[in-house]
Amino acid sequence: MTDPSALAETVSLTGSAPADRTVWIDPTDRGTVRCIDQRLLPFEYDEVAVTTSTQMRDVIADMVIRGAGCIGVSAGYGMYLAALATSGLGAAEADAALAAAGAELEASRPTAVNLSWAVQRQLSALRGIEDGGARVEAARLLAETIADEDIAMCAAIGQHGLSLIEEIHARTGRPVRIMTHCNAGWLAFVKHGTATAPMYAAHTAGIPIHVYVSETRPRNQGARLTAWELHQAGVPLTLIADNAAGHLLQHGLVDLVIVGSDRTTIAGDVANKIGTYMKAVLAKENGVPFYAALPSSTLDPTLRDGVDGIPIEERGSHEVTAATGFWNGEQVEVATAAPGVSAANFGFDVTPARYVTGIITERGVSAASEEALLALYPELAGRVGQSTSPEPA
Amino acid sequence: MTDPSALAETVSLTGSAPADRTVWIDPTDRGTVRCIDQRLLPFEYDEVAVTTSTQMRDVIADMVIRGAGCIGVSAGYGMYLAALATSGLGAAEADAALAAAGAELEASRPTAVNLSWAVQRQLSALRGIEDGGARVEAARLLAETIADEDIAMCAAIGQHGLSLIEEIHARTGRPVRIMTHCNAGWLAFVKHGTATAPMYAAHTAGIPIHVYVSETRPRNQGARLTAWELHQAGVPLTLIADNAAGHLLQHGLVDLVIVGSDRTTIAGDVANKIGTYMKAVLAKENGVPFYAALPSSTLDPTLRDGVDGIPIEERGSHEVTAATGFWNGEQVEVATAAPGVSAANFGFDVTPARYVTGIITERGVSAASEEALLALYPELAGRVGQSTSPEPA
Repeated sequence: MTDPSALAETVSLTGSAPADRTVWIDPTDRGTVRCIDQRLLPFEYDEVAVTTSTQMRDVIADMVIRGAGCIGVSAGYGMYLAALATSGLGAAEADAALAAAGAELEASRPTAVNLSWAVQRQLSALRGIEDGGARVEAARLLAETIADEDIAMCAAIGQHGLSLIEEIHARTGRPVRIMTHCNAGWLAFVKHGTATAPMYAAHTAGIPIHVYVSETRPRNQGARLTAWELHQAGVPLTLIADNAAGHLLQHGLVDLVIVGSDRTTIAGDVANKIGTYMKAVLAKENGVPFYAALPSSTLDPTLRDGVDGIPIEERGSHEVTAATGFWNGEQVEVATAAPGVSAANFGFDVTPARYVTGIITERGVSAASEEALLALYPELAGRVGQSTSPEPA
Repeated sequence: MTDPSALAETVSLTGSAPADRTVWIDPTDRGTVRCIDQRLLPFEYDEVAVTTSTQMRDVIADMVIRGAGCIGVSAGYGMYLAALATSGLGAAEADAALAAAGAELEASRPTAVNLSWAVQRQLSALRGIEDGGARVEAARLLAETIADEDIAMCAAIGQHGLSLIEEIHARTGRPVRIMTHCNAGWLAFVKHGTATAPMYAAHTAGIPIHVYVSETRPRNQGARLTAWELHQAGVPLTLIADNAAGHLLQHGLVDLVIVGSDRTTIAGDVANKIGTYMKAVLAKENGVPFYAALPSSTLDPTLRDGVDGIPIEERGSHEVTAATGFWNGEQVEVATAAPGVSAANFGFDVTPARYVTGIITERGVSAASEEALLALYPELAGRVGQSTSPEPA
């Protein structure tokens, strides 16, 4: 079911319109969790039916689904499937089986913090439940709760970001032109997304918007995923080469920039997909507000200086010397660079807080400063500055 | 000979190493002009043998060769081939035949200023020459002169730019890290190129350099042509996604940026390939010098404000929604974006003079200001400000 070559030949399993969330329990078969297969998007829409936690491990490891929020929620559902398999067992045997399933899930993407958090939350909730039926029901409820929390968090980000868009529309009276980068859309969460949440909220509220989507080389998540999402939702958009962002900002064609973030320091330095920093500097240079939309779970109170403190993943050269796309009905990787040439491939960059107009979180919009972020999240104050990063020599 | 599909199946016509210039008279057959076929570079190296001015028209129109300098020089050689065909004619008949050949060549790329200039220069020189042999020899000499002038101009740019690189190497004692964009290399001229000329001069002088080449979406001239050029010449290079330029500049990994230019105003505003402006702003923000290397023929004394005054070509959407590369032995275009999505595709942008550290020309390095450029090119003073662009309403 999760074999890529097999999936490539499958037609849509629903036979209907694309789902409006990334992962869910099949309403007609509670023993099955369904998720959107993101590997062939936007060229083929497909769903995967998952019936065991081991299959969910494969779904996460093979990147059928990706994105921090989506991974965490999928792990929660994976533990529900594991609980289903223990319905005939007593507490002791079930606890052991669940612990093994949890360890297997956690190993699928070792650096995904949300994944481990969801697994541990399920293990705590299910430990010692003697009745199999009660255990399954507890696991199902918690899985749905984890998903609902993700949805609510994104919806709140959407509402807080909406006020920024409303203000621009009220002032200008014309469609609000928003630039984004990479995919911080609902495909990376369950619904709404983070950077896209204010856009969907505005679209739903009837405020006209137009989104400029950067293709986001080398992996093209903007061209593939964000463009697909917005197009599906009927949000007007224009794709651009990453190189064109400066020209648009220079010519007053963008009203605000909204991106996501993988990790933001308590001082407001924003780590996000490579290229974000260039957009932020160009936005500031041209007087265009630049926002990062993110769940508070990605705020890192232990770090202030993100440029020095956040390690930047370097990925394989071939992503830059090639491009992946569809041709003659199949997905292929074509060589785009001179043979023998190697590439540097930084996955992320860090935008210093001085270029960030504000941080849109589930509790509200904050300035990109330690004072403002701690005012919104006072519970983080106790951990500030306890960085475990290496000290400068 | 200039049919693309036929060329795709041809092996190298020389059977030896790639040529070191883009276009030349075959030393073993003076009735043939040879040029490098740039359409399949860097995946296949091939040369085209041209024996008539009509074939040269096709070579230019089909973009077998491209780049302002290379087009002009090729047109000069095209007129030499036209003269060869008139060797049995008297002045009157030859003048008519040459005028027809010139008109045909000029129509191949109507906006290429160098093309018309080379054709007209040949027509003036050959008009009224009664003796066929003398006419051919005059055409050959002028074609070689036009090529030699292009080579000398690029070499002078290289020497002036070399002094910038030498200064950095003397100060730091380590390899000089240079970032460039697109292809302003020898493939766009006859030899040396403009942005690359200082790099080749440094490499020849034994000054260690390392070049960061941006792939330059959507047409990837950096990944395809500049990377191929530098790799062939043994210059160390690293390819990067356009998105990574800011990260490198932020982390002190670049000592200077050198790009080419299609048109530069007398005030120092630089029009160049889309994405140049972003590199310039990021360079200034991080204290890295940013230079444009260009022949004075591309200085436009009639314009001061390039952002307002230089029209930006918009190209087809499909260049952004797709990527061209090699796969299974052939060049294919793969879809990279969500189906149904359209893209904006600006070919160029304009970098205001305030971000430009200097302009490297064949007469020396100038500040990016009207005063400094006119001090180096006083003959332009009489045409300053006579813009034919539309006035603001």
